[in-house]
Amino acid sequence: MQFAVEPVDIASRSPTVLLNESDAADLGVHPLDRVHLDHAGGTTVGIVELTDQLVPPGVVGTTRRLDTISGPVDVSLAPTPASVRYIRKKLDDIELERHEFERIVDDITDDRLADVELGAYVAGVYTNGLSLQETLSLTEEMTAAGEVISWDPSVVADKHSIGGVPGNRVTPVLVPLVASAGLTMPKTSSRAVTSAAGTADTMEVFCDVSFSRAEVERIVDEAGACIVWGGAVNLSPVDDKIIRAETPLSLDPPGQLIASVLSKKKSAGSTHVVVDIPYGEGAKMESLAEAREFAVDVRRVGEHIGLTVECAITLGSQPIGSGVGPTLEARDVLETLDGAGPADLRLKSIRLADVLFECCGVDADAAALLDSGAARERFRRIVDAQGGDPEVSPGDLEVGRHTRVVHADRAGIVTHIDNRLVNDVARRAGAPRDHGAGIDLHCRVGDTVETGEPLCTVHAEVSAKLEDASSLVDRTEMIRVRGARETLVERV
Amino acid sequence: MQFAVEPVDIASRSPTVLLNESDAADLGVHPLDRVHLDHAGGTTVGIVELTDQLVPPGVVGTTRRLDTISGPVDVSLAPTPASVRYIRKKLDDIELERHEFERIVDDITDDRLADVELGAYVAGVYTNGLSLQETLSLTEEMTAAGEVISWDPSVVADKHSIGGVPGNRVTPVLVPLVASAGLTMPKTSSRAVTSAAGTADTMEVFCDVSFSRAEVERIVDEAGACIVWGGAVNLSPVDDKIIRAETPLSLDPPGQLIASVLSKKKSAGSTHVVVDIPYGEGAKMESLAEAREFAVDVRRVGEHIGLTVECAITLGSQPIGSGVGPTLEARDVLETLDGAGPADLRLKSIRLADVLFECCGVDADAAALLDSGAARERFRRIVDAQGGDPEVSPGDLEVGRHTRVVHADRAGIVTHIDNRLVNDVARRAGAPRDHGAGIDLHCRVGDTVETGEPLCTVHAEVSAKLEDASSLVDRTEMIRVRGARETLVERV
Repeated sequence: MQFAVEPVDIASRSPTVLLNESDAADLGVHPLDRVHLDHAGGTTVGIVELTDQLVPPGVVGTTRRLDTISGPVDVSLAPTPASVRYIRKKLDDIELERHEFERIVDDITDDRLADVELGAYVAGVYTNGLSLQETLSLTEEMTAAGEVISWDPSVVADKHSIGGVPGNRVTPVLVPLVASAGLTMPKTSSRAVTSAAGTADTMEVFCDVSFSRAEVERIVDEAGACIVWGGAVNLSPVDDKIIRAETPLSLDPPGQLIASVLSKKKSAGSTHVVVDIPYGEGAKMESLAEAREFAVDVRRVGEHIGLTVECAITLGSQPIGSGVGPTLEARDVLETLDGAGPADLRLKSIRLADVLFECCGVDADAAALLDSGAARERFRRIVDAQGGDPEVSPGDLEVGRHTRVVHADRAGIVTHIDNRLVNDVARRAGAPRDHGAGIDLHCRVGDTVETGEPLCTVHAEVSAKLEDASSLVDRTEMIRVRGARETLVERV
Repeated sequence: MQFAVEPVDIASRSPTVLLNESDAADLGVHPLDRVHLDHAGGTTVGIVELTDQLVPPGVVGTTRRLDTISGPVDVSLAPTPASVRYIRKKLDDIELERHEFERIVDDITDDRLADVELGAYVAGVYTNGLSLQETLSLTEEMTAAGEVISWDPSVVADKHSIGGVPGNRVTPVLVPLVASAGLTMPKTSSRAVTSAAGTADTMEVFCDVSFSRAEVERIVDEAGACIVWGGAVNLSPVDDKIIRAETPLSLDPPGQLIASVLSKKKSAGSTHVVVDIPYGEGAKMESLAEAREFAVDVRRVGEHIGLTVECAITLGSQPIGSGVGPTLEARDVLETLDGAGPADLRLKSIRLADVLFECCGVDADAAALLDSGAARERFRRIVDAQGGDPEVSPGDLEVGRHTRVVHADRAGIVTHIDNRLVNDVARRAGAPRDHGAGIDLHCRVGDTVETGEPLCTVHAEVSAKLEDASSLVDRTEMIRVRGARETLVERV
């Protein structure tokens, strides 16, 4: 059926279209059905909602995500997406073929899957896992679905952390550090998956992170490096949609993770990549053996798609840095670039830079580059090139004004800081979407504390969110303090 | 924050609210966030979409599902639903406690879970299964979440089929048959889960199926029985929401199935229930052993909640009856009640009625009641009481006018009719939502056919849907015909 187009001012996250109920009856479509919109620019998928009054018969109302479509359009019921069968197959624990991943990636890219289907896909990959062959197929299909950037230099450095460790904001220190040694490092980062902030969320505190491919090239030309959000560059469009489905349940299955990471590195035109794999209680990899096994798979998939990949297995059983949440982490980054900052964040940045230097065959000394101010100077050039204030200082950063200080309920030693609870509390406080929300840690495992001493401060921008975070703090033990010679951990 | 309320004419399936973007920024909410709407009538959950123009600042726009809310309302960000943690736990294959099911059922009932979360819940229960203890907990919580009806007679008969077999429209024959022997049988049925039609979809061809509890009592008073949609009676409100998440991927895990069925029977005030468990290739239970194991669990859970349950394990490797899809099945039902109709449908109805008679201690002969016209007479009273035309005859029923006849491509014997493909084709043709869509089978397994003989006719109300169904028919073998003495099934 042929329709005129009228924009409807709804900022839906989905490609929603409004149809008059009489037209919907003629088309045989119901709310949340997928339709094909055939227009001059091609075919676009729409998700139907119905109305009697907002659009008249003969008109399709397009919400903001579809505002580039102009009439006339032909509207027809979209056929059942083929990938629904393959998701069911994965739930039945049957290995998927490459062409099946191709359809899954295509259907996610084009919004053909409904949210319940996407939730089931992520859950199926999580519970049944992906074989190495499946991971290879998925990585190649995800790479094929996005744009690929190519660079002049033959060596292009890159870095990725599999995440799971709160804080751990190494990238904004590492990128200018590596670039200050003359390497090209066009870093695209994602927003948070299961953590309280992704690198893109933290960098957004300083400057824009959403740039087109041409803009990214201009920034790298100016600063030798960039730290931008991968979603905007359209390097792996499908990845952001999968991440959106993983986030609510904090799911991040290894095979999907490898495919997400390496497809994005390949698309970014990187040649040499260091992958940070933290392990330990509460990290994504619980044991060293598990971390090693994962590292071997990462290297295999990397080799297969033509990347030089080095994995750094790191300690991940407690947060790295003091701040957790975009603005609090941004503060740590600035202080570290100033030669101060949390010791663990500084040392980890230096170690990963040295691994990259060695792997890329560059003779440079990371600690010296940091202490000389060369890295800080390079960071300012990056922020400037990305439209931020290069003179920003820690005092300029605004953290959430609603706070809750958590005190030690006894004297003793900090024996454990629970990564998952730190993330959960920071997320309930509003991170990563509320930049100023998060946790400021005042202690590390091994520190001696007195009764009543502040262990951390929870920050929120919205008081309801602070309450939500506080209620989780109250009924759990995010930071564990035990008597100095106590050996009993828990009675069950 | 305090808001005025303005209705917005969108017939969303979700409890969508529209907020002005400036208010959303003040509240710290984003598209698809859950908010609490506190109003004079209580607290309702809303799902946020944003707009600049459709509602001004200070006003919340309520879509049709929320049209009973009047202002002023207090809008606040809803906290993270507790059940998200329990869904994750289920995905990690850890047994859930009863109180955890309580929260899951509550959160689904009150629309607190997003679709990706609901999809992950269903996928988790499907891949990791539910233990008997978990099934008991879930059954009790689902029963507790709805209303319970009580009846005067001490014996109240009921029936359920676990489905999976196309056609199989026994209920509209069985209910009047059992009621004509003097038993009370207030049957509430669901709409289709994985099949081309549920009993409620088929009955809707004859009469209304959506009735309040008081109306159901009036119907049963008049006719001694009813065949209504359980969703409208609010007997198991959570069930319809779970089914909506199961439908796209055709998931129907056993534990969830037992909980759905028995909670609904308990809520309907039934005392004696026969559960039809079809088994065979393409049925939900593939083997007799699996069917028996499931039957034992059904009986155990039934006993636990105080129901007398008898399970009938039946042949389910091909469709029962000729029609698949609401109207085509309605035709089979009428013909069977007229003493004719498909032989398999007639015999199955008689067998299940005799099991119920024995289990309820009633001395009656099902075949005699059918042949005497007593069951047909009772069916007319039910249709009349439910607002339909009691004089309806098969000729009054309109099937989809877009048709595709499938012919035998060789002479031989029908060796297999694939249940899942029959369902998939009928669903693509538009069933169950398009009542006239479906498949009319002209053969049964074991029939001898000539080359070019019609095997079945696919019906659709919308030509695009017929094409979608046809394309599946063309690339699969829904009805298998083999040479008379052929023993080779497939070469791989």
